[in-house]
Amino acid sequence: MPILQAMGKNLTTRTEDYSKWYNELVVKADLAENSGVRGCMVIKPYGYAIWEKMQAELDRMFKETGHQNAYFPLFIPKSYFSKEASHVDGFAKECAVVTHYRLKNAEDGSGIIVDPDAKLEEELIVRPTSETIIWDTYRKWIQSYRDLPLLINQWANVVRWEMRTRLFLRTSEFLWQEGHTAHATKQEALEEAEQMMNIYADFAENFMAIPVIKGTKTESERFAGALETYCIEALMQDGKALQAGTSHFLGQNFAKAFDVKFTAQDGKLDYVWATSWGVSTRLIGALIMTHSDDKGLVIPPNLAPDQVVIIPIYRDVEQYNAVCDEAEIIVKELRTKGIRVKLDKRDTQKPGWKFNEYELKGVPVRIAIGPKDIESKTLEVARRDMLTKEIISRDTIAEKVELLLAEIQKNLYQKALNYRKTHITDVNTFEEFKEILESKGGFIRAHWDGTTETEEQIKNLTKATIRCIPMDGKQESGICIFSGKPSNKRVLFAKAY
Amino acid sequence: MPILQAMGKNLTTRTEDYSKWYNELVVKADLAENSGVRGCMVIKPYGYAIWEKMQAELDRMFKETGHQNAYFPLFIPKSYFSKEASHVDGFAKECAVVTHYRLKNAEDGSGIIVDPDAKLEEELIVRPTSETIIWDTYRKWIQSYRDLPLLINQWANVVRWEMRTRLFLRTSEFLWQEGHTAHATKQEALEEAEQMMNIYADFAENFMAIPVIKGTKTESERFAGALETYCIEALMQDGKALQAGTSHFLGQNFAKAFDVKFTAQDGKLDYVWATSWGVSTRLIGALIMTHSDDKGLVIPPNLAPDQVVIIPIYRDVEQYNAVCDEAEIIVKELRTKGIRVKLDKRDTQKPGWKFNEYELKGVPVRIAIGPKDIESKTLEVARRDMLTKEIISRDTIAEKVELLLAEIQKNLYQKALNYRKTHITDVNTFEEFKEILESKGGFIRAHWDGTTETEEQIKNLTKATIRCIPMDGKQESGICIFSGKPSNKRVLFAKAY
Repeated sequence: MPILQAMGKNLTTRTEDYSKWYNELVVKADLAENSGVRGCMVIKPYGYAIWEKMQAELDRMFKETGHQNAYFPLFIPKSYFSKEASHVDGFAKECAVVTHYRLKNAEDGSGIIVDPDAKLEEELIVRPTSETIIWDTYRKWIQSYRDLPLLINQWANVVRWEMRTRLFLRTSEFLWQEGHTAHATKQEALEEAEQMMNIYADFAENFMAIPVIKGTKTESERFAGALETYCIEALMQDGKALQAGTSHFLGQNFAKAFDVKFTAQDGKLDYVWATSWGVSTRLIGALIMTHSDDKGLVIPPNLAPDQVVIIPIYRDVEQYNAVCDEAEIIVKELRTKGIRVKLDKRDTQKPGWKFNEYELKGVPVRIAIGPKDIESKTLEVARRDMLTKEIISRDTIAEKVELLLAEIQKNLYQKALNYRKTHITDVNTFEEFKEILESKGGFIRAHWDGTTETEEQIKNLTKATIRCIPMDGKQESGICIFSGKPSNKRVLFAKAY
Repeated sequence: MPILQAMGKNLTTRTEDYSKWYNELVVKADLAENSGVRGCMVIKPYGYAIWEKMQAELDRMFKETGHQNAYFPLFIPKSYFSKEASHVDGFAKECAVVTHYRLKNAEDGSGIIVDPDAKLEEELIVRPTSETIIWDTYRKWIQSYRDLPLLINQWANVVRWEMRTRLFLRTSEFLWQEGHTAHATKQEALEEAEQMMNIYADFAENFMAIPVIKGTKTESERFAGALETYCIEALMQDGKALQAGTSHFLGQNFAKAFDVKFTAQDGKLDYVWATSWGVSTRLIGALIMTHSDDKGLVIPPNLAPDQVVIIPIYRDVEQYNAVCDEAEIIVKELRTKGIRVKLDKRDTQKPGWKFNEYELKGVPVRIAIGPKDIESKTLEVARRDMLTKEIISRDTIAEKVELLLAEIQKNLYQKALNYRKTHITDVNTFEEFKEILESKGGFIRAHWDGTTETEEQIKNLTKATIRCIPMDGKQESGICIFSGKPSNKRVLFAKAY
């Protein structure tokens, strides 16, 4: 009992040190940990179970919109990266390079060494993203308009060498999905890119309970090789923004780089239009930082590996048996409703220890059941989001828990939305901009002259970047907060993860 | 119409050239193809959909037996491999080695080159299997018997540098699952290893319709680092065996190599007992070679992405509309029964072309529907396994197709089982052994003296290896076919993939 209770109490609070709170929480809630390999994480079973829930839901959404999964090689020949000029600068630099294909025993018996005779003719890059290898393949798959659209997604690991890493938020290896589609017309590709942004937003809001702002990136923040990058931006509890998903309109750039042409219905030959889009295990970081509190993780019911935990309260074996028998019946009733429920029958841990553990792990609903509850035909039900308890009639438990889970899901979204609403500030001067950024944080809506120079200078002076040009932003005349030049739309600034 | 029909007709037959038939089939049925990266394949959407079906079923079986998924790093520091002596010889030799973490633009403008300043202090190996990185992690997770058993599985890509590759059967990168469990006692670990072999056998037989023989490997065929390797062995249509899954009892080898100890209930400190087990995309190769024929792929209904395809027959738009309307109703009826059905409404391809395509792709049941069928209230139903057709009453279509799918599943298993039964031969002399191996192939049950020397010599002379010591083999006195020394059990020999 004492160990985990102490751990729960010892969790650094968000106001003390937000960053430390996050790092501790990820490890203590058993989500992930650093491995013996620099920058690479181990995703523990509890963290992976959340990722599996995300995968299942996204996969369903992708398939419902006509996408199919496929799998492309982990390795990309170095020369492929040189084919799309802007792409190579963005991706081929900080990456893992395979140069040899064999080890051997050192002749001096000192251990195993890289065999110098097994040097690759051309180095292979561990994929940081797969546009190049996929478009090299699409050339063979696409000849006619009949082959289009080609709507493919891949679930995979990717590697981007990172100097400063943080669990889930920035790791050298991470898991993600990457969609890569090919279209006959520019219009269709643009619609696909926008559709996927909308699917990501739908997933973030309705499944993860994270409100997001949809928009497009400025030129300097675009994906390397894209003509337009659509994104969803979320706001964390420390007032910093987090890019939760991106969807790129790639124009004909990759088709030209890899010579992918098709014969249109009218017989003319043209390059194919492309999109790519992805979300990653970074979403787990967003999940944690949006909902969790000083007691630990808070998981929205839709994503929770266990939505309900039942904890038996007892003094002796007789009570234990009676309480567990009753609890098993409740488990069945809840499962009939499709609720994911766990009964923690372990007698190696005390109830108080278990209460703390499931609080730390963010299980949405906790039911305690003891001999008195059986007598009174009631149950004590606690909700993780509000940290409140109520007494519920035994007879209606399944219906009540079902409603409660829906309410928690809604409440978490509303809470996050309220936070964001109070953390979007309109400013009209650079002084005000800096003041708000330092005092309150959050998103700042301000006029910008549309130039990369201004964007760069604001970034250098304040560390704030333009998160996006919001899709729903209305036309409004104004002057750029930095340069004083005219502007016709406000953009969204923030410091970001 | 002509193109694919020609392709179907042009498929090399199995008797002409089995190996060529296989290679053509994989590509023409849209399962996979070679990529621009040596030895790495692209798994196309149709092939990947089959893998997803396999994954879903195996994942369910693993979870039902208490296993959880997690994810460990792709990279393993070179030194980790040296820690388990026999493991390094088996795995660390032919592998992809990451030596650098950055590329840069060449100063002479010739392109991008590996940055010599970005050399890793210690090389990283792209995982060929994850025992070492996982046991390095388990050291932190296991302190007490309360932490055991630890039952973890990982779905991942692995890389083993192969000089001669074949799609699905042997590729440098492949997809698999690897289970890694830790136990307090030897007995429990042995039971786990045997349980997983049984789960693989259950999956192969009841889901893939592939009969398998369960057994243990001889010492020389064991996994590098294992004390016992359990396996399931299948027989392909060319008389060669294919190892379809392995499950290893690792003793305390990895616990000792990575110093993983636990405090037992009695307070004593001991090393942990381990197992590991895996199946891979190689299973798709086994699937193809077990069931398919000269017309193309044959997929058991349980694994088929589409179990039923409906093809409209029509002469004009009016007929097209009427037939498609009726077909849509049939689709709904079948889906109500949980049947995966596809209606191919494309009017860019003729029915004959479609018939060929779905034959090549192995869709278990094909329904053709034209104006006459609507009139007569019947449907023409073709089954892929037998290449037969029958007329079925429209009213009972859903029930009939459901029964038919079950029958096809059963028939494919029975057919493969019959083939195997007639291809297990008992021999008592080495002459007979060689004769059977060359003329008939298949499994050969023969006495063996139990020595690695004899096993090696037989292999060198005939290319046949001991596939396994069957679990159900009975005690029987005899003499080794090669050495003439005494033996008390027959073992199973075959040439193998």
